[in-house]
Parts: sequence; C-alpha cells; structure tokens
Amino acid sequence: MIRKGETICAPATATGGAIAVVRVSGPKSFEICEKIFRPHNSKTRLRERRGHTVVYGEIVDGEEIIDDVLVTVFRKPHSYTGEDSVEISCHGSQYIIRKVLELLINNGAVPARPGEFTMRAFMNGKMDLSQAEAVADLVASSSEASHRLAIHQMRGGFSEEIMRLRQELLHFTSLIELELDFGEEDVEFADRSELLKIVRRVKELAGKLASSFRLGNAIKNGVPVVIVGKPNSGKSTLLNALLMEERAIVSDIPGTTRDFIEDTIVIDGIEYRFIDTAGLRETTDAIEILGIKKTLEKIKQARVILLVDEITDSPETINRRADYLRKLAGDDEKRLIILINKTDLYPEKMSRKELGKSIMLRDNESLLFISAKGKIGLDELRAKLGEVIEKEKLSSEDVIISNMRHYEALSKVSESLARVEEGLESGIPEDLIAEDIRQAIHYLGEITGEITSDEILGNIFKNFCIGK
Amino acid sequence: MIRKGETICAPATATGGAIAVVRVSGPKSFEICEKIFRPHNSKTRLRERRGHTVVYGEIVDGEEIIDDVLVTVFRKPHSYTGEDSVEISCHGSQYIIRKVLELLINNGAVPARPGEFTMRAFMNGKMDLSQAEAVADLVASSSEASHRLAIHQMRGGFSEEIMRLRQELLHFTSLIELELDFGEEDVEFADRSELLKIVRRVKELAGKLASSFRLGNAIKNGVPVVIVGKPNSGKSTLLNALLMEERAIVSDIPGTTRDFIEDTIVIDGIEYRFIDTAGLRETTDAIEILGIKKTLEKIKQARVILLVDEITDSPETINRRADYLRKLAGDDEKRLIILINKTDLYPEKMSRKELGKSIMLRDNESLLFISAKGKIGLDELRAKLGEVIEKEKLSSEDVIISNMRHYEALSKVSESLARVEEGLESGIPEDLIAEDIRQAIHYLGEITGEITSDEILGNIFKNFCIGK
Repeated sequence: MIRKGETICAPATATGGAIAVVRVSGPKSFEICEKIFRPHNSKTRLRERRGHTVVYGEIVDGEEIIDDVLVTVFRKPHSYTGEDSVEISCHGSQYIIRKVLELLINNGAVPARPGEFTMRAFMNGKMDLSQAEAVADLVASSSEASHRLAIHQMRGGFSEEIMRLRQELLHFTSLIELELDFGEEDVEFADRSELLKIVRRVKELAGKLASSFRLGNAIKNGVPVVIVGKPNSGKSTLLNALLMEERAIVSDIPGTTRDFIEDTIVIDGIEYRFIDTAGLRETTDAIEILGIKKTLEKIKQARVILLVDEITDSPETINRRADYLRKLAGDDEKRLIILINKTDLYPEKMSRKELGKSIMLRDNESLLFISAKGKIGLDELRAKLGEVIEKEKLSSEDVIISNMRHYEALSKVSESLARVEEGLESGIPEDLIAEDIRQAIHYLGEITGEITSDEILGNIFKNFCIGK
Repeated sequence: MIRKGETICAPATATGGAIAVVRVSGPKSFEICEKIFRPHNSKTRLRERRGHTVVYGEIVDGEEIIDDVLVTVFRKPHSYTGEDSVEISCHGSQYIIRKVLELLINNGAVPARPGEFTMRAFMNGKMDLSQAEAVADLVASSSEASHRLAIHQMRGGFSEEIMRLRQELLHFTSLIELELDFGEEDVEFADRSELLKIVRRVKELAGKLASSFRLGNAIKNGVPVVIVGKPNSGKSTLLNALLMEERAIVSDIPGTTRDFIEDTIVIDGIEYRFIDTAGLRETTDAIEILGIKKTLEKIKQARVILLVDEITDSPETINRRADYLRKLAGDDEKRLIILINKTDLYPEKMSRKELGKSIMLRDNESLLFISAKGKIGLDELRAKLGEVIEKEKLSSEDVIISNMRHYEALSKVSESLARVEEGLESGIPEDLIAEDIRQAIHYLGEITGEITSDEILGNIFKNFCIGK
C-alpha cells in the first residue's frame, strides 16, 4: 500500500477539456520531469527553481515535440502531498495525456493508485484521515449542503475536538495502568469522579455525532425518493415536470452542465434522487404496479414514497393503496406523500375537501392536490419534500458526520464508554475498565488516523479517483 | 465578436476529474479574482504578484469558504492570451466549478465564448490564424499522425513561407499600381519576368499545399472504411476482431481510456473509422445488404470498401458483387479490398489459388483470404489498410495541410494566379492583372490571418471548445 520512495504520476483532470493537468509527486519528480521537459526561454533546471513558480516550455520525446505546456514546481513540504511535486498543464487531447504519462513512466515514475496523492498528504502529516476523506467527498459533492459539509470536514471539522478528548482519555488510562502496576497497594492516581466526567463528555459527543449521521448521509448521498401509482396516473409526467423545473433553476453557464445528473432535484441545497425511475417509467403498462417485486425493492431503498392517485379515484381505493404501501414500507422512518393528480382535468370536482377528509393520514404523512400536466401544486410538493430533512440542523453550528466509517467508529466508542461508565459506577476491577477505555481510544484514533492499518487505508483510498 | 475590454472566464478542463481549472483573462482579471480569493499565508495582492507564480488560498463567497485552490498569475504580455490572466485550480466538483464561475461573473467577468481565449491570443499577436486553428486540432487529435500535424502547424508550419511570398506579391502589385497611376505614360516599374517568376513560385507552392489536403484530411479526420457483404458473411465478427486487437494494443494507463472512440483502429498512426457500423450490424438479417439505400450512402462516404465474401462463394458471385460495388462507388479514389472469409471452416478447400485467379481485380484493389473468427489474415488486412495512405509523405519534410478553409483559400490562390500567368503571357491590361494578384494576396492573407473578417473569425472559433 505505502511506497514512499516511488515517484507517482496520474492525470488529475478528466479527459475532454481544452487543457489537462498531469500530476507528478515523489522524490524524483524534478529529475524525471527534466528529462522530458524543455523550457522555452530559460536554462534553469526544474530542481533549481523556486517552489510555486510556473515555467513555459515543451514536452519532448527525444527530438519530437509532444506539446507546449506550463509546468508548475512545488517544493517539499509546500505541496499537496508534502513531497516535491510537478504539475504539467498540457492540451487536453487524449493522445497527448497518454504520451506525457508514458514518457513519465519510461523515465522512472509509476502510475499513481486511486487516492495515492491524498494518501501521501495524510502520511506526510498534511491532513488527518477524516480531512483526507473529506477531499473525496468534496470532489463528489454536487449540492450546496454536501459541499459545505465536505469543506467543513476538510478544514478540520470535529477532528480537533476528538483528538483533544482522546488525549484526556489517554491521560486517565495511563494513570489507571499505573495503579495496576502498584498491584495490591490500593493507591488511586486517577480521580474517579474526574474520569467519569470526561467519559460522559466523550460519550455525549460521540452519541451526538453518531446521531447526526442520518442527516449527514442524506446531505452527502441525497434523499432517495420513489414514485408509485397505477399506470397512467401521471408518474412520469410528474417526474418530468419536477426535473424540467430543475433544469430551469440550474444556472446555464456554458460548459458546466455536461455531467448533469439525471433524475435529481435539489431543494434547499439537498439532493433528492428518484431511484431508478427509468425502470418505473417502463412498467407503466403493467396492470398493478404496486405488486411488482422490483417496485418493492425500490420502496425499501426509498426515504420518501410519492403515491400518485387520480382525482377520480375513490377514497377507499386511495386508503387501500396507502395501507398497502405502509405495510410494504414497514418502516416508520419512511415518509409517505399522497398525491391526488389530474385536478386540472376535473375542475368541476369540488369535493376535494370531502376527499381530503376521507383519506386517513398518519403522523408525518401528507396529502396534496396537484396537476402534474398543468404544473399545479408542484411548489407545495417541493416544500413537502424539503420538510423531510430537518433543516434547522443545517444552519446550526452543530457538527454533522456523513461518513459510514466514522459512524461505525463512533458507535463503538459509545458502547465502550457505556461499559466504562457502568463499571465505574458499580466498581468493577480497574483492568477491565482500562480495557474498555483503550477500546474507545482506539476507535477515536481510527477516525482521525492516529490509529491506522493498511486495511483501513486501503478501504478509504480505493474509492478515490485516480489523480487525487 | 471582438470585445477586448471585457474580462472573460470559463472552465478549461472537463468536469469529472480530481481537479478542475478555471481560466480568467482580460484587463480586470486580478481585480476580479482578488474579490473572491483569500491567500492563506500572504498579504500580497494578486496584482502585485510576479507573473508565473502560484499562490495557495481559498475561494470565498463573502464569509463562506467555497474551496481551497491554487491560483496562478500571468502578467501581460506573458500569458496565453497576451492579457493579464489568472488560472484557478480547484477541486473537480461540479458544484465548486459552477460556484467559482458564478462568483467571477458576479464580480464583473463575462462567460467566455467558444475559442475566445485563443482568439484573443490571435488578436494580441501571440499566434497567427493558422496557428490558432492548430490549437483546436491539437486538442482534438487522437492519433500520433494527427497530433504531429497539429503541433507542426501550431509551431508556425507553412505560415512563414506564405507570409513571405505574400509580401513579394504585395511589392509587385504596388509597382503595377504605380504604373497604372502614370496612366498613358507607358512606364514599367515592375519587371514582368520577375513577376512571372514569383507568380509561378507562389502558384506552385499553393498547388502543392492544396494537393496535400487529401492526405492531411485523412490524417486529421481518419480514413472512413465501410464493411459490406451478405448476411452472416462475418462482417461484425471481422469488425469485432479488428477492434479487439486494437483494445489490446492501446496502452492501459488508468484514467486515460475513458473517452475511447468506438469503431476506430489506428494503423501506423493513422485512424481508420468504420462508418456507422452499428447500423450495418443491425441489418444483418436483411436479405441482400448491397441493395439497401443506407449502405449506399455509407459506401459514398467511405474511402475504403471491405467486401466480405465466404470461401464457399463462387468466383462468379464474388465478381458480380465486386462489379456492383465498383458501380456504386463510382469513384476511382475508393479502395476496394475483397475478403474471402471463413477459411478456417473449410481447411480442405485447397482451391484458393484457383479462386484467386478467377477473381478479377483492378489496379489498387486487393484480395485477401481471412478467417475473422479464427483471427487469420488480420495482420495482412491491417497492412493493406495501411497502404491506402501513402505514408512515405508522412516521414518527409513536406508540409501537409489538413484544414478545409486553407484548402479552399489555396485553391482560390491557384486560380487567381493561373489567370495572372495567362494574362502576363498574353499581355492583357495591367489593371486586370493587378486585380487578380490582389485576389491571390487576399486569400493568402486569409490563411495566416493578415486579412480577417468577423465572419472568418466567427466561423473558425465557433468550433472551438469553451475554455480554449
């Protein structure tokens, strides 16, 4: 996993743009690049250049010119990785990018593995592990809220607080272990009430952070929404209407919308993902969509279920469908929104109030009258979707975690410390208490990277893109 | 079209990478970027920084941090555009890219139009027009030969020679025009035999360049190839076998093969494009593919026709098909390669020599025995395809043009000068000769950009990508 002596290289930008950037990092960065780079108006070698300076020249393969490029020199430790690094900014042709990489590799560099630049930054103390993880989140962030979360985590976020509390716990454990060394002499170096206080404080923080994961996860990965309803009830019209509005909202600066994610809308900075709705659209000619196994799976993945009914449906039918869905969902955390569609077709239908009264809603469920085709009631629907996420938490100063690995570590910290608390209260032997504290310390350390293993690092960085 | 006072901005890289680069260029580049950029460990303002230096800091929207970035400062005239420029290297999230552009625009920049950075480079004398055009070719180049062509053109290529000859023509025209001013006095300032010499030299060069267009176009746009044959003769097996070999040949440096172009193989650095072969594959269950109108169109676009027959077909059938194809092609420039497929299925068929003798071939046509399934004879086929392009020209020092606009201009130069030559020989009035020379001068100037119009510039740069 870790190969510090090597000099790595990779494209850092996607292919297809006007320019591309190739990154080189490691002890031989300058030496390797000097072999393939010829400055235009200078004789200073790269290794003699000041850090953070750019030089114009050409990449050459022997006498053949490959491209005119800008080369930026970064000297350790003042680079992203903390190592000597070079960034080659070339024209964005795939042929050129491949050729530059080939030349670098032929001259001694090795292709970087996914996330290897960031892993080196971590290994060289440029950032802790949770900050490194935030870099991947930042690159992937597609909404304002997920972006803000990643930036906050990259800037240190909760790492410092965790490191501080971990230090305090470490201090107490060493005192307890000192007591154990004295064996039978019954001395007490560690103030038990002080220890209990710090244990409770850490446990509270861990619990608070762990419980923020649900929100953090929604922010980071979006809120899954499924649309169900009988054929021709207007499901795809509704989805298209929502997406169409989204298209209009999204700013149209040229060149920025190429990778627009299909079937996603953003409400108050949070992304709502319509799960595999292409599949749903295909099944509109099935007789009863609710019974289909595929739909069942989608409902299980969803956090929000939109049930699309028609204004001509009887209250009994709608109630029956809703009940069926509640049974399928089986989970109180899922949010059901019942939509009565096609209200534009039956303007004479004045019995909305009646219909509304006859439909049974549980807590947290909603009923809306809409016309997907006439674009009536869509704002209300967006508002209802927005309510699914408790946004008051977003604006607060509370720290939110969005990483499954952190969530699991924090849960284990809480468990260990619960045992410590119980043990201190019931007066169980010091060695057992010490072991539980050690465990909590271990998991806290895993979050920030003070404790790491090749396995942890491997799992984290394998999900990075190449060149990061 | 031209708006020199504005400061423009655009993403210069494709979305989807680890990092992205946003370009800013124009008189207010520093002023605008200072408003949204906060250096981390420095108080020096961007406008006070030396050119070609990089500074680490953050992009901010008021108090909100958008991203940690590297900002590179370029001071006029030492930048790509020749203007004050800034490159912002940020994380590659689409949200961040959009936000950075929004901030730039809100602070006074305008979104760049396609090719506007390069157009400014041209307007500011950093390159001539044919060099500017080469930049677009360079970004689009996907094979070694097309890349080499673009690099050569970007480095000046034939521009200098054209500019020099144009100067000489200009000199003679002014002398002739001087003669016209003297009207009836019958003086002769311009030495007619000298003029004839220079006219012939320019005409020869223009003709040579124009005739290189066929090769240049093949290098730049690839050689269109169409595969025809009766159903189940093995057309798609053949194509897949060729493409499969290609996949194995293409180096697999991670991250560089994402945009791999389908249905293209490279032989000796030249791309061979199989025209809309997906369509051909779909029609395999039609009874007689040769008769289909769509195929006819494809044959018309092609430079090479691969006719796939089977070893069991009679010589008469094969000759009849070939004749039909020759008639359809109607163009001696197209290259017909007759393939006798499925040789592996009939190893006992020892009559190849016989069959070969019975098949009538014209000049420049070929016959090959292959097995697409057994991968027999594919190397020979690749070699035959390679022969379509006269590669000896590639290695020579001859200048090759690949741009339709240049080709058209050069053809017009040749026409005008042919009239001048004729006129000088037959002694027609000076004013008519002067007009034809003027025309030649005009078209020569259009190539290098010494003569431009908004229309020409518009046509050239509209095909650029944004950010270039």
